[in-house]
Order: sequence, then structure tokens, then C-alpha cells
Amino acid sequence: MNRIYELTDLIDKDLEENLLSEIEKEKISKELNTLLPKNSIVLAQINPISGYVEYNAKKALKWIEWANRLEIDAIVFPEMYMIGYPIGDFIDRFPVIVEENVEWLEALAKLTKRVKVIIGFVEINKEKVGKNYYNSIAILSEGKIQQIIRKSLLPNYAEFNDYRHFEPASVNSESRIVDLGGKKAGIIICEDGWNDFDFFDKNLYKEDPVEVVVKEQHPDYLINPSASITRAKKEQLKHNMLSFAAKKYKTPIAYANQVGSGECLSFEGASRVYDADGNLIAMAKSYKEQFFIVNPFKDLGKIYPLPKGLEKTLNSQKAFTLDHEPDLERTYLTIVQSIQDYFKKTGFKRAVLGLSGGLDSTVCATLLADALGAENVLGISMPSKITSKESKNDARELAENLGINFTEISIKDMYDATRVKFNEVFANVDKKWNCRYAECFTNDNIQARSRALILWGIANEFQSTLPIATSDKSELYMGYATINGDMSGGFAPIADVTKTKLFALARWMNENRERKNAIPESIIAKRPGAELAINPKTNRPLLAEEALMPYEFLDEVIWRVENLHQSIGDMIDSEFLYETKEKISKEQKMQWLEKFFRRMSTSLYKWTIMPPSPIVDARSINKVEYRQPIIASKINFNKTSLDEKIEMLKNT
Amino acid sequence: MNRIYELTDLIDKDLEENLLSEIEKEKISKELNTLLPKNSIVLAQINPISGYVEYNAKKALKWIEWANRLEIDAIVFPEMYMIGYPIGDFIDRFPVIVEENVEWLEALAKLTKRVKVIIGFVEINKEKVGKNYYNSIAILSEGKIQQIIRKSLLPNYAEFNDYRHFEPASVNSESRIVDLGGKKAGIIICEDGWNDFDFFDKNLYKEDPVEVVVKEQHPDYLINPSASITRAKKEQLKHNMLSFAAKKYKTPIAYANQVGSGECLSFEGASRVYDADGNLIAMAKSYKEQFFIVNPFKDLGKIYPLPKGLEKTLNSQKAFTLDHEPDLERTYLTIVQSIQDYFKKTGFKRAVLGLSGGLDSTVCATLLADALGAENVLGISMPSKITSKESKNDARELAENLGINFTEISIKDMYDATRVKFNEVFANVDKKWNCRYAECFTNDNIQARSRALILWGIANEFQSTLPIATSDKSELYMGYATINGDMSGGFAPIADVTKTKLFALARWMNENRERKNAIPESIIAKRPGAELAINPKTNRPLLAEEALMPYEFLDEVIWRVENLHQSIGDMIDSEFLYETKEKISKEQKMQWLEKFFRRMSTSLYKWTIMPPSPIVDARSINKVEYRQPIIASKINFNKTSLDEKIEMLKNT
Repeated sequence: MNRIYELTDLIDKDLEENLLSEIEKEKISKELNTLLPKNSIVLAQINPISGYVEYNAKKALKWIEWANRLEIDAIVFPEMYMIGYPIGDFIDRFPVIVEENVEWLEALAKLTKRVKVIIGFVEINKEKVGKNYYNSIAILSEGKIQQIIRKSLLPNYAEFNDYRHFEPASVNSESRIVDLGGKKAGIIICEDGWNDFDFFDKNLYKEDPVEVVVKEQHPDYLINPSASITRAKKEQLKHNMLSFAAKKYKTPIAYANQVGSGECLSFEGASRVYDADGNLIAMAKSYKEQFFIVNPFKDLGKIYPLPKGLEKTLNSQKAFTLDHEPDLERTYLTIVQSIQDYFKKTGFKRAVLGLSGGLDSTVCATLLADALGAENVLGISMPSKITSKESKNDARELAENLGINFTEISIKDMYDATRVKFNEVFANVDKKWNCRYAECFTNDNIQARSRALILWGIANEFQSTLPIATSDKSELYMGYATINGDMSGGFAPIADVTKTKLFALARWMNENRERKNAIPESIIAKRPGAELAINPKTNRPLLAEEALMPYEFLDEVIWRVENLHQSIGDMIDSEFLYETKEKISKEQKMQWLEKFFRRMSTSLYKWTIMPPSPIVDARSINKVEYRQPIIASKINFNKTSLDEKIEMLKNT
Repeated sequence: MNRIYELTDLIDKDLEENLLSEIEKEKISKELNTLLPKNSIVLAQINPISGYVEYNAKKALKWIEWANRLEIDAIVFPEMYMIGYPIGDFIDRFPVIVEENVEWLEALAKLTKRVKVIIGFVEINKEKVGKNYYNSIAILSEGKIQQIIRKSLLPNYAEFNDYRHFEPASVNSESRIVDLGGKKAGIIICEDGWNDFDFFDKNLYKEDPVEVVVKEQHPDYLINPSASITRAKKEQLKHNMLSFAAKKYKTPIAYANQVGSGECLSFEGASRVYDADGNLIAMAKSYKEQFFIVNPFKDLGKIYPLPKGLEKTLNSQKAFTLDHEPDLERTYLTIVQSIQDYFKKTGFKRAVLGLSGGLDSTVCATLLADALGAENVLGISMPSKITSKESKNDARELAENLGINFTEISIKDMYDATRVKFNEVFANVDKKWNCRYAECFTNDNIQARSRALILWGIANEFQSTLPIATSDKSELYMGYATINGDMSGGFAPIADVTKTKLFALARWMNENRERKNAIPESIIAKRPGAELAINPKTNRPLLAEEALMPYEFLDEVIWRVENLHQSIGDMIDSEFLYETKEKISKEQKMQWLEKFFRRMSTSLYKWTIMPPSPIVDARSINKVEYRQPIIASKINFNKTSLDEKIEMLKNT
């Protein structure tokens, strides 16, 4: 049966590069039609561009034309495909975009034939009550819009904002049934399929559209067009849930997911079918567009593998672990796809970044080389007087190994010119304000900011070139990053990757990239430090862990905040992985915890001015999914008792 | 009757500064109690801090203690007072904050007496279905939480995100009735009062809680605890709506609003009462905390004036106007309050900004001086070789007039050192990438970024000092602002003020500030330009309007986008105010419109990395209320016809 997928690989190539002649297309279609069982459909695993409706429509037409050559019932596009997910708030500010998405849908409909096109779009709500729009699926065929189905459950948490723009529709089970080749297919739109009362311990919504549709309409199978992003631990949940529902209702489910990245959100594809026993019988590629032919009633023999180890992780992560390996391939693919799509969709071609010889810039350079091609990446070593010879050598060696462009330029003269001016201006300010810090980061920051000045200068001078911000998640939580310095850039590839995971990712890339061991072992082996200041205690460049706390401890705090939503009290009472290896006093632990929450609360400003970055983890501080007002810097993360509170009030 | 308010002014002073002795307090209470008619209540127009529950609870207690001295029925705090609005997403990420807000509420309850305390908080939803929280009002008295009322209508548009966190409650009219001194008061929480089907042409929600409560429970009056932000044109709508509902239901309405600013959102206070005929019979101060005693059944004779001219504007703005005057006092007060609260709530004391001698930095400096005290503001003139003598003189004269600290420092040496390095690095890059721009902004940006480097250096070196970003709204829409340059800072006071309004605001401040004409006329009279580059055509520094388009035209495009949500097609067919004065060809107009939308679409990145700024206009591009994915840069803002689309598809 795999001949089907050899042939669809050719279709995928043709869709991407218009390779095939009419005769070749005929030949492929003919052979495919002999292989396809009745009631096959296509899951269009496709990558739209947000707001670029014309592009999305033209692209859809090419896929629809291929579908029309085949003896299949339908081609299923993802949720909101016409307008391109994610949408931010533009449909409210610019109604012309919605009008255009409706008209392009009508234009597409005119050109449809027998095969039903099941396609997501934004529908205008013409009633006098409710939000302006519906999140809808249209069924197109025979030159017309035949039917419209509206989403009922509107997710509005984390990265989801459906209820900002859309009116929730009543489930209306009858409207959701589509006749496909004599079979009754029930349409469930993304979140509509995520509210099973038996599967979840806690449910967000009062109604389960799947249950209503199945019980009222007895469909032969369900189709779920989605735009569902990849996150650590989500795949296992999705698999278990879809399998559970298919088995519970003895109804096959075909799930069509978007692929590609939209700024901070990444869609992994992996569209699929579960049979009536809840068995996975078909799965599309991950992180690739695919014209994926499936049959809800028949195993066509193809389950493309998920990124290595993905499933394994997801069940197990109930405690913090330093064994990041199971999630590394997914992490790598997510970031690479994000870089590629961010550059492609915004029109950038080249990336420039500072190479410090440290871990963060090293991992960024490697990911950029793989995403954009080494020839489109420029690494610049910008030593100051604190930079060690080893760091300079490491940077150069890395660039050579990756094959990226490289240059070295000293920032000493810029630093000196700035420092002279600072002395002059500080002396003047001193006369007016008697409030100079005894210790501060002024000199550290001149270095980081001079480097960013060079990167942005290159972006100003050379076409389609984007500077890269290299800050990582552990350091961003602590505000250990310089405004207008290493935080600054057009894209931040690793802002959702913690430090301990970055070490693991570096080793993984050394083993799994075609060019083995491109990252010099000396970079991975050395302890991180920004090389911006000298530690007076050691007389060597200050190490990050000296300024912060051990990364293994820090990363577990982050993990507990994001995954368990713990307070200081919860954490002080739990044993950390770090504590099983190193004995630390309760005072030391409390000091680190308080430092974490204090620094986090005063670093909120930095999070809000970060450039876009791919969301990778189960939870992140990416501003697309999490916002905390900067003024909320006085939160008490350590509970007091009711009696203490009453005392505090009485003593006010 | 105004004696009541002379006495409450003393209470306000005491609440702020603990001025009064026990004997004085007794005396004031006694006199007030002789003056107050039965069924008086207090609207606690108060300024909480987001997430700082302990502070909010202690502050509330002081107000409650004052209420207990008086013969009144209740004291009404704003919506969500305990936790402090706005909340961003922190209640989902850190449940400990919610637990704390509940416990502090319980602690407060223990200390309550006869007077009922009506106070907003976040309630935990213990059901297995729905969001984790309710947006609720508690009624505290006699040492206990007596009753809880839950919000039903959850706004989730623009700056509102209620439905991200809260479960909508059924209206449950019985639960909303509170006995206050023998009268039945019905509690309506903020948005619950904004869905009258007779008042609005289009309604967001299917149910009107006011209608349900009035019809089912026949309350003697309604109380609406709110957190409702000030925006251009909102006051008139609010007034008309509340008056309409009071009259329609022959039921007085007491509306208690939050005051103060939370980062980007400003609350103007102006709490008030409408009688059963819809007449406004009491209004609190604007932009000030106030212990505001009112009576739903009796005119106590005090309507504090709204900021000058406010009401006038709001009705009239159906077309774009250059007559900004009616909105200037509100604009001024909103920004001054925002600066004050941002600094106070984040712990900053001093501001430093570049003074270019241009309009933007001039207006910022004046607002900062008024908000923080002139002694806490430092203006720095940082001339480059392009800076004119006039600009330097204007900057110095402004600083002298404002009484702020001032220094001048040339950036020439920093520029030169950077430029030498740029030449070196560009020559290297040129060998690798053959893609240098013929014309670019490299030199312009070195200047802007060197200046920001100095400002951030001062912030690094001196305690509690925040650099200020001076970009304005007109220029931000066009991306006419430098990353890590003038866009960079900890707060951006005028990011929601268009250029034509800034001119008007400068003149208004010259007339209305205590020190008249502090802003030199030469600054207001000159045409704006960044003085970063020379225009080869005129051989003088490039003017902004030469690089962009006339500001009068630009500001009308912005107004039409934000208020009328127009496309290019809509605008090309409408007459602009600018066109009534200057004849322009259709081609010229189209060129400007296309330039606007093109530049806007490629400037989205800059919006996302802006520091916090006060929302002032009816709509803004502040990221708190508007987000557009950066990758959505290929939107077509000019409709094509259906036939054109079908042709385009056929020709793909």
C-alpha cells in the first residue's frame, strides 16, 4: 500500500515546485485511483500566511486541483485556513481583511467541482447580538458554498484568543453533518473536540460537541480541522484524547492539522486518523506540508514517525528531570521551522549574530545555519578586553565547523569612546543627583550594547538581514540579559529553552547533525559566563552561576512555576533534584527561591520588549501566551496564614 | 450641603497622610453624622496596586475604619479591588496570589462591623467545569463574609481579558440583592451594566443583567462597582448609558470607579450617582482618590467638574478634526497620572531623557516635570554634527524654563568611533554578502542609538532612574523611530498621542500650566525633523513630513483606521480635512495611503518591543489592546472585486 505515499510524495513536490507535466499528473492520478479504496479523503496539511488571503487562496486552489484528479470524497484544510492563523487582533481593527477572506472563499467555491472542499475561514456574524465573527468551516463543491459549520468551544487561554473575536455557536448537530460519498461525516472544529467529560478531570466548557453530534446524528466518522500548536507534553494528551473519543463512540476520527510556524506559534502537522476502535491507522509527516490521503475505514498502511522519542517524554514528565533527550528532536525541529517561517513570511534572508564562544550564541548559530543555510548566517566575534583568547578561538572554530560567514572586530575603541563620555556626563549628573550606585552594571552593559550596535548597523546596511537575540529562558527569568544588548534583535531562537536543556541540545546536535561535532567540546564543557565583568573573589570573569544560582536548581524552579504553578512555600517543602546530589541548607534554598521570585518580578519589563521567539515548552513567558503587568512587582509568592494577616491588619 | 465635602476632604487627607488625631476624627464624624441623610453610602474611589494584595488590604482597612465612624449603610470598593486591576495573566500562572486575595479578604471581614463593605476580589471556582475563577464582589460585615455576587458579562476585547480567567456566572438576580439600611440594593459588576438592548444598536451579550435584576427583584437602587478606563469619547457614552438605564427603570444607580493608572491603563474615577429620573446628582473628583459620600435618594449638592471640555468632545467626534482642544486637559491628566503611578508602583523616582529641541522630547519633558517634580527630571542635549545651534538653544531654554536638571554632551566621538568600526566590519561583510543598500539609515541610527546608550548608562549608574522613550503615535504607525534609539526607554509617555495633537498639547500646556509659556515658541513653530540626516534636495536636515507625508493627512488616516476601521478603498472615496485646504491629486492621495499601510505593516515589530505607554485615544496600537502578528505583513488593505479574484485564481 505504500505505493500510495510514493505517489503523493510526487504530488507534494509538484505542489511545492510545479514540477510535473500534465501527462505525468494524469499518470499519477490514474495509478492512485486504482489504489484508493472508496471513501478516501485528503487531509491538506498546509502552511498558510497570516492575513495574506490571496496567497492562501491561490495555494489552496493548487491543492484542490490535485484533489479533483482523484477519486476521493473531500479535501480537508485546517481551521481558519483562508485568513491564516494566528490572527492577533487584525480582524477587529481591519474588517476589510475579513471581507476579503469571504470573497476569496466565494471565488474558490466558483472553481470547485465534485470533490468537497472543507475549509476554515472567518465568517461575518450578521446578527445584532454577539461578537462580529464566527470561526467557521465552509463546505465548497460544484461551484458553490454548500454549507457552513460554526465553532462552539472558543479557547481563550495561553496563546488562544478565540473569544476575543468570535461568537460561540450553539452546537447545532444537524448543521455539522456533511454527506461525503454516501457517508455521514460530522465536523468538529479544533477545541470542539477537546471537552470529553470522561477523559478530562476538569472541563472548561459545559457542553461536549462530540457527544452531541454523535448521539444526535450518528455520523459514520468525524473530521476535525485544527490549528493546534506543538508544545512539550501535548502530543501524548492529544493522542490519548482522540483515541479515547474514537473508541468511546465507535466512530473513526480524521484530524487535519496546520503545519508551519506563525511567529511564536509552531504547528507540527502530524495529521492523522483513528479507527472506530481508537487505533491510530494513519499519521502524516511532522514539520512538513503534506497532501495526505487517508481512509477513515481502512488502514492504508502509513504512519509516518513522530520526531524521535516524542511520545515517550510526554507521559513521564511528572517530575523535573535533567534527561532532556526525549524532547530534543522536537525542540530542534520546532525552532528550525520557526526560524525558516519567520524569515520567509517577513521577507528576511540573512541573519547576523554575535559569537561569544559561549553556549547561547553557539546554539543559535547552529540552528540558524540549519534553518537558513550556512551561507546566509554571519557570526561576529566582538571581543572586549575581558574576552578570553579561548572564547575567541572557540567562536572562530565554531564558525569554521558550521561553514557560516565569520568576522572578528574589537569593540575596545567604541567602549573607550563611550566610557570617556560616560565619565563626563556622570560627573555632571553627580552634581545634581546624589544617588550613584556603589556597584552597578554600567561597564558590562556598554560592552553588550556596543555589540548590538554593530549587529543593527549591519542590518541597516545590508539587505534583508536580521540581527538575532541570543538570550535563553533561564537567564530571561532572572533578567540576566541586557536591554539593547544581547536581548535585542529581530528574532530570539532560544528564549524558551532553559540552560540545562541547551547543553543537552548542543550535544544532541553534535550527534545528530550531518556534520558531527560541529560545536567544539570546549564550548559545551565550560561553565557559562557573560565575560562582561571580573569576579573580584576569583579574579576571573564572573560566572553566571555565581551571579545567579546553580542552573540545575534554577531550571527546576522554572519548571515548577510553569508546570505545577507552585509558590515559594510549595517549593521549600519539596525536594529538588539538585538536593539529591548536593547538600544545601534550608536557608540557602530559601535565599535562592526568594532571589528567583524577586528577580523575576523586576525583570517583567524585559520580557515585554523581547523580540518574537518560538514557544517550545509546555508553558513559557513568551508574551503571546503570558502577560504580567510590570507594575505587579510587589506580589508575595510566599503565603502567610490567616492569623498573621489579621495581626498585620490590626497593626497597620 | 457642601460642608459634607469640606469634611470628606479632611478624611481624604487623613487617609493619605494620617494627619488627624482621634479627637479630630471624632469631631468630623459627629458633624458629618448630623449632616448625612438616611441611606447614605460611600463610594471608595481608590487606587490599588496590581498583585500587591497586602497593600490593597491594609489600605482598604483604613477606609473601612473611617466608614465605621459614620452613620452610613455601606462602603463600595471597585471591581477586583483586592487583587488590583489590571491582572494580566498572573492569577493563572500563580494561584498563590488568588489564595492570598481570598485570605486577605477573610482577614478584612473579621475586622468589619455594622457598615457593609462591598468589595471586589477574585473568587476560586470549585466546580469541576469551567474556568478556575470568578470575578466577584463580596459583602462583608459583622466580622464575616455575608454574601458573594459573581459577574456575568465578561468583556474580552481591546484591553479587557476577563474571559481568559473567569467563568461567566448566571445572572441569578436573587443573589445580587443586598439589604442596606432597609433598602434593597442590586449589585451589577462593571460590564454587567453595559448591555442595554434599547440603548445600544448592537449588543455583545444575549442577556442584560440590569433588566433581569430590576424586573425580578425590584431593587430600590443599583450599585455598580467598576474598573473602567478613560479613553477619548468614552465618558459621554458612559454618562448617557447610566442615565438612560436609571430613567428607564426608575431606579437610581451608584457607580463606583477605580482611580489611578496601572501601566498602560488609566482610570479617571469620576464615580457618580444618577437618580430615578436619570439625573446626575453626584460626581466625584477625576484623577484623585476620594472617600465620596453619596445618597441614592437625595441630591447632596456636589458634582465635581470633569476635566475641562471633556463632555463636549465626546459627542461631536464623528469626523476627524484638528480641534484637539476639548480633549487636552483629559489627555494631560491621563498622562501625568500614568507617569506618577508607573514610577510609584515600580519604585522608580527619577527620569532621564534626551532633549533634542524638537516637539516630542519637549512635551515629554514638560509632562515628566509635572508628574515627578522638576528636580527628578534630567534632560540631556546630545548634539551630533547635524544638530543645529537653534536646537541646542531650544533644549537649554526649555530645561531652564521647566526648572529640570540639564546637561549637554556631544556624541561626536562615540559616533566617530562607531563609524570607524562600521567601515571595518562592513568591508568584511561586503566580501561575503553582495547586498549592500544603495541608501540606508545606518548613520542616522548610530546617532539615535548612541544617545540611548548614554541614557541607559545613566539608568545603570544612578539609583531608581528610568530612561524615557519619546516616540509619538504618528511616527510609530510609520515605523519612523529607531530600535534601541528614541524608541528605547522604560516608559513612553506620548506613544498614544498623534503629532497634530502634540502641537495642540504643547500650546495648551503653555497656557494652562502655572508657569506660562515654558515651552519656547520656536520649538512649537518649527516643522518636525529628527536632525539625523541631510535632505540632499534642500541641503538642510530632512524634515519628517518630507520623509513621510503631511502630518494632518497622516493623523486623519490613523483616526480613520482606529475609529472607522476603514480600508484604502473607503479612504480614497472620502474627502480628507487636508483636501479641503490643499489640492492633491488622486494619485498623490493613493500614494500616501499605500505608503501608510505598507509602512504600518512593516513596522509591527517596533510596536511589539515598545515600553509601556498610557492609552489615551479611543483606540490605540498599545500592545495591551492591539496585537497583529509581525508575519502578517502582506495584508491587502485595498479590496478587489469577486470577478478580479476569480480571474487571479484562474491565472495562478
